[in-house]
Amino acid sequence: MSKPVILLDPHPRLRERIFDAGQWQRLNELADVIEDAAAPIPDAVVERWLPEAVAIIGQTPLPAERIARAPKLRALINVEGNFYQNVDYLACFARGISVLSIAPAFAVPVAEMSLALALDLARGVTTADASVRAGGELYGSAGNAGAVLLSGARVGIIGYGNIGRALHKLLAGFSAQVQIHDPWLPDNVLREEQAEPVSLETLLLSSQVIFILAGVTSENQGFLGQRELELIAPDSIVVLASRAGVIDFDAFADLAEAGRFRAATDVFPTEPLPADSPIRRSRLLLSPHRAGGMPAAMRAIGEMVLDDLGLILRGLPPVRLQPARRETILKLRSPPAQSYAKPVIAKTA
Amino acid sequence: MSKPVILLDPHPRLRERIFDAGQWQRLNELADVIEDAAAPIPDAVVERWLPEAVAIIGQTPLPAERIARAPKLRALINVEGNFYQNVDYLACFARGISVLSIAPAFAVPVAEMSLALALDLARGVTTADASVRAGGELYGSAGNAGAVLLSGARVGIIGYGNIGRALHKLLAGFSAQVQIHDPWLPDNVLREEQAEPVSLETLLLSSQVIFILAGVTSENQGFLGQRELELIAPDSIVVLASRAGVIDFDAFADLAEAGRFRAATDVFPTEPLPADSPIRRSRLLLSPHRAGGMPAAMRAIGEMVLDDLGLILRGLPPVRLQPARRETILKLRSPPAQSYAKPVIAKTA
Amino acid sequence: MSKPVILLDPHPRLRERIFDAGQWQRLNELADVIEDAAAPIPDAVVERWLPEAVAIIGQTPLPAERIARAPKLRALINVEGNFYQNVDYLACFARGISVLSIAPAFAVPVAEMSLALALDLARGVTTADASVRAGGELYGSAGNAGAVLLSGARVGIIGYGNIGRALHKLLAGFSAQVQIHDPWLPDNVLREEQAEPVSLETLLLSSQVIFILAGVTSENQGFLGQRELELIAPDSIVVLASRAGVIDFDAFADLAEAGRFRAATDVFPTEPLPADSPIRRSRLLLSPHRAGGMPAAMRAIGEMVLDDLGLILRGLPPVRLQPARRETILKLRSPPAQSYAKPVIAKTA
Amino acid sequence: MSKPVILLDPHPRLRERIFDAGQWQRLNELADVIEDAAAPIPDAVVERWLPEAVAIIGQTPLPAERIARAPKLRALINVEGNFYQNVDYLACFARGISVLSIAPAFAVPVAEMSLALALDLARGVTTADASVRAGGELYGSAGNAGAVLLSGARVGIIGYGNIGRALHKLLAGFSAQVQIHDPWLPDNVLREEQAEPVSLETLLLSSQVIFILAGVTSENQGFLGQRELELIAPDSIVVLASRAGVIDFDAFADLAEAGRFRAATDVFPTEPLPADSPIRRSRLLLSPHRAGGMPAAMRAIGEMVLDDLGLILRGLPPVRLQPARRETILKLRSPPAQSYAKPVIAKTA
Repeated sequence: MSKPVILLDPHPRLRERIFDAGQWQRLNELADVIEDAAAPIPDAVVERWLPEAVAIIGQTPLPAERIARAPKLRALINVEGNFYQNVDYLACFARGISVLSIAPAFAVPVAEMSLALALDLARGVTTADASVRAGGELYGSAGNAGAVLLSGARVGIIGYGNIGRALHKLLAGFSAQVQIHDPWLPDNVLREEQAEPVSLETLLLSSQVIFILAGVTSENQGFLGQRELELIAPDSIVVLASRAGVIDFDAFADLAEAGRFRAATDVFPTEPLPADSPIRRSRLLLSPHRAGGMPAAMRAIGEMVLDDLGLILRGLPPVRLQPARRETILKLRSPPAQSYAKPVIAKTA
Repeated sequence: MSKPVILLDPHPRLRERIFDAGQWQRLNELADVIEDAAAPIPDAVVERWLPEAVAIIGQTPLPAERIARAPKLRALINVEGNFYQNVDYLACFARGISVLSIAPAFAVPVAEMSLALALDLARGVTTADASVRAGGELYGSAGNAGAVLLSGARVGIIGYGNIGRALHKLLAGFSAQVQIHDPWLPDNVLREEQAEPVSLETLLLSSQVIFILAGVTSENQGFLGQRELELIAPDSIVVLASRAGVIDFDAFADLAEAGRFRAATDVFPTEPLPADSPIRRSRLLLSPHRAGGMPAAMRAIGEMVLDDLGLILRGLPPVRLQPARRETILKLRSPPAQSYAKPVIAKTA
Repeated sequence: MSKPVILLDPHPRLRERIFDAGQWQRLNELADVIEDAAAPIPDAVVERWLPEAVAIIGQTPLPAERIARAPKLRALINVEGNFYQNVDYLACFARGISVLSIAPAFAVPVAEMSLALALDLARGVTTADASVRAGGELYGSAGNAGAVLLSGARVGIIGYGNIGRALHKLLAGFSAQVQIHDPWLPDNVLREEQAEPVSLETLLLSSQVIFILAGVTSENQGFLGQRELELIAPDSIVVLASRAGVIDFDAFADLAEAGRFRAATDVFPTEPLPADSPIRRSRLLLSPHRAGGMPAAMRAIGEMVLDDLGLILRGLPPVRLQPARRETILKLRSPPAQSYAKPVIAKTA
Repeated sequence: MSKPVILLDPHPRLRERIFDAGQWQRLNELADVIEDAAAPIPDAVVERWLPEAVAIIGQTPLPAERIARAPKLRALINVEGNFYQNVDYLACFARGISVLSIAPAFAVPVAEMSLALALDLARGVTTADASVRAGGELYGSAGNAGAVLLSGARVGIIGYGNIGRALHKLLAGFSAQVQIHDPWLPDNVLREEQAEPVSLETLLLSSQVIFILAGVTSENQGFLGQRELELIAPDSIVVLASRAGVIDFDAFADLAEAGRFRAATDVFPTEPLPADSPIRRSRLLLSPHRAGGMPAAMRAIGEMVLDDLGLILRGLPPVRLQPARRETILKLRSPPAQSYAKPVIAKTA
């Protein structure tokens, strides 16, 4: 074998979902790709190829011993989107192994869905459609009492990572006054992006539209508690599109139900939502975790992985996937989604 | 009286809806405002004040004889949004009377609603919400088979007036490939706005997302017939947000029902929609004419009227309201909405 | 003759300069074009064709009597860029004749030159080049004591017509804080364009970079007098790119010479500048009226005229050329440039 | 001492130039800052504080032995702008020490200067100013034969690092067709930024305006040789703003002198330029290395260092300074400027 060896272990994703035919061909031109019918890939196969592998694509457990047995390894590419705590990341960093995530592939999909949900709440799209189906709908201004514009609105973004940035870009044409809270970023970074850095409290008190886009870390679980949610201005629009773990979900649902603000969510404390969950009959606009995992995101994963592998194999730094940062990777807590191989369907009794 | 006289005859709109308290005060500082408890304003009142009026705000009938009796008249401001054919517009132009419309106040509201409807169709927001309420919803990629992005999509805009321009601006952050068809505009105008001018046929054949934003004229009624609608690429997204009169609505609904494309509409051939209309149970995403008439539009009307009246009274040209054009005003056919003074509610037996 | 007749009288411009070969052919396809070897076109020729002409391209004198003898006339297109006071414009308006100017063709050229001059002053481009030629130049930060950025600067624009808008667009990537003074525009118009409306005094006191882009009217001649110019913040950058008539040019030059601010000008009270003018040896950055009249502007003139004639002949409103406004046309005083047919060269004894 | 210790060794920069009074105070609040009257800081001082230092700000030599003696070291911050090859960078990476550069502080300054030089060449600002001083200047279109617009032009950017990105942003309002060549970036990255990725050859052949912004590496020295420069389209505009080492400077100057293209340069093979260099009398537009080192850049250095130190001391990843990449740091060859402490002045006999 003269081509570099890559170990492909994408479980819980399916190879066919992240590489289309053309991408798969390009990958095989770049490298000898080791796969296995079993998913995840069996330990024996991992052990067999560790000494040869230049890159691992997947969520394979990599304790320090395995890393020590992989002298050629230059990149570990998570294709799930959340870093698992099953790798000795510090050993990777010490060795100069790039630890990369395909999370950026979901940024635009989640941002567009977040905007879709906010616009729906702003204009009552879903409820108006239902009213026409039920009959007795109100036309024109008679039905628009609560309708608001995003254009010119004060928009608050909580968490300015990939998704926050993608959403900010989508808002370019809205002349919105964007204020951002992200405790991991200096104010100057936000000002350079023409946004106003604000405290969480200011953001909650003064935003007309709030996007909650922060991932879960060991430090921020449930940071949007009852007290914080009660700061939200009456009749605001609140979209939760990152992880249920950052919020007191019951308080969130209760306040929405009470009409304190209008809210939409793409995530739930347990997924699928229990068949008898009262959330199913609530005033929340409900999206069953569909913000990210769409066909365009899958195509983007394939492109990003191929682009960065191409660079890495040429001895250049990767530029498209998200590199893990030594300082934060051990703090990340966003859970992977539950299953990718077969449809996740809510069962209702 | 030392202040100029303005005749206010906003029917079918209500004065309170188009001027809030602050705006109403500003208007009264600018001029002596003549109103009447009756709406529309009685002929006798019109006749009494014609010799004094510097501006008329409203849809008062103005045949040539009345114009001749209004020597001070400098502006006629339609606050309904559609030019009625009850004015001798050519006589106004000959006299140098500015004929103005508040239509631009609806541009951003309709554009945001159009985008909201397109994003809903692209991501299945309304149907997903309904599925969670019904139970058995599909999570994540399992439910996203048909999900598409607007970012990077080929977007076609039919009709590039106020609304088309506002929508184009909203799309600034979407990196979309925008192609526009507007037979009243030279190609260079569209190219200067970074859009591609295309024929109607090319637009229909090649767009992934189509916005129908053309008003009705004497020349274009029903120009989107069965033949044209069948050109639309399979599974495209089609949003109708201007007037039902430009389209063969039955063909539109039938093709959407057959799954040829995904479609949303804010307008209907008759409004309210008949109680037994099959449209109510169709696959169309249904919005009961709510795109324009929202509170923000009403506030904008007041601002625009005040700004332009201020200029006119200073001897300067108006810049915010839309001036009627001699060449086209007699061709305009977009009907006014049916009523503004009281809620329009669909009655269901 | 079955095609419509157009009278072409472009003097002081030359036909060859405003229509290239392809444009000339397109014009002749649209219409029968009447020219004459003499420039301006002789009265007899004008009189001969007045009864037939649908449009006049040029600065032909048109008193009311001539307009009365031109029953088919629908457009009068000034190709010089400044409306001459040799037309009975009110008679044109009464007849519904479109009075149009090619001024917009100069907007981007003048805006780019204005930016070029501002950047030159901000960074000392011209003086640094001269210093290297003379020897003894300072390198790097040693030579950069006065260097400033436009990015993030507070930029003031005086006059928000075609040029001001074009410049504002050019500044899109500079994250500048743009404040505008234009007494003919309501504040809301400027706010909608993401600029801050300010008084002239505030603009002069607080801007780091000032662009003077206002045309001359009967009301604003010399409005930037000694008193106003002294308000300008020390060491600011001031670019004069519209007309010398709006400013006390001597005070402007004196203050620049005294080092109060850095200044550039594209226009002069008399052009060519007298051979012995002290301005030639001043600290002003000097541009001999080259901001507008460049090849790209000439091509744009041809395109704009053809586009709008095409619309007018189809019975549609023109959209590219600038329509004269009844309220302001009699106030315009920007003088035409002196000659176009042969080079204007400063003679130095 | 309870605050963390930072070693400050900015030579050849001066501390006062990179931290203004307020920034200096903020730095001292963050840490105990060790300085020395001697510059660079004496070895003994370095050795004394290595065991304590959490960060080193400066270009201190750091062989592996020193790194081994610095157990608390978390960041090495180059404030010169070019990575010196006097550090065992791989040892830093193995230890997880962030290696950072203030190069981004120069991005906007160099980009604005590049644009200033391009606009000067496009419009002849410097030569026109000289012509007015000399007398006999040509006015208006007579002097504009070679004038071109950047708006709408095909612009080629060679090297898409900090400066290239900053320039691309500045061009946002120019509706330019931007094509980029950067062999370290996948095509998809450039497409996502709305630019067209092209080969070097295509860029040189087809661009109307070319910006050379690539730094020098061990692999690209002199990659713009005689053969490549001859590909440049006649009369194009070429701006060299990165390093003279990437180009065959003699060929560049000769071709510009021969009128093949218009060219400007901010850098020279030797600086200061020899007093008798023929470049001083050439047709090149000459800028004595002033693109980057301006006051705004110095202020930005201080801000960026403070922001990232603040994050590092909180255990968070730096986000403003440019992190060295393991794959490329050993290839970098851009030389530091010669001196910062005292003015660099060309001596002319």
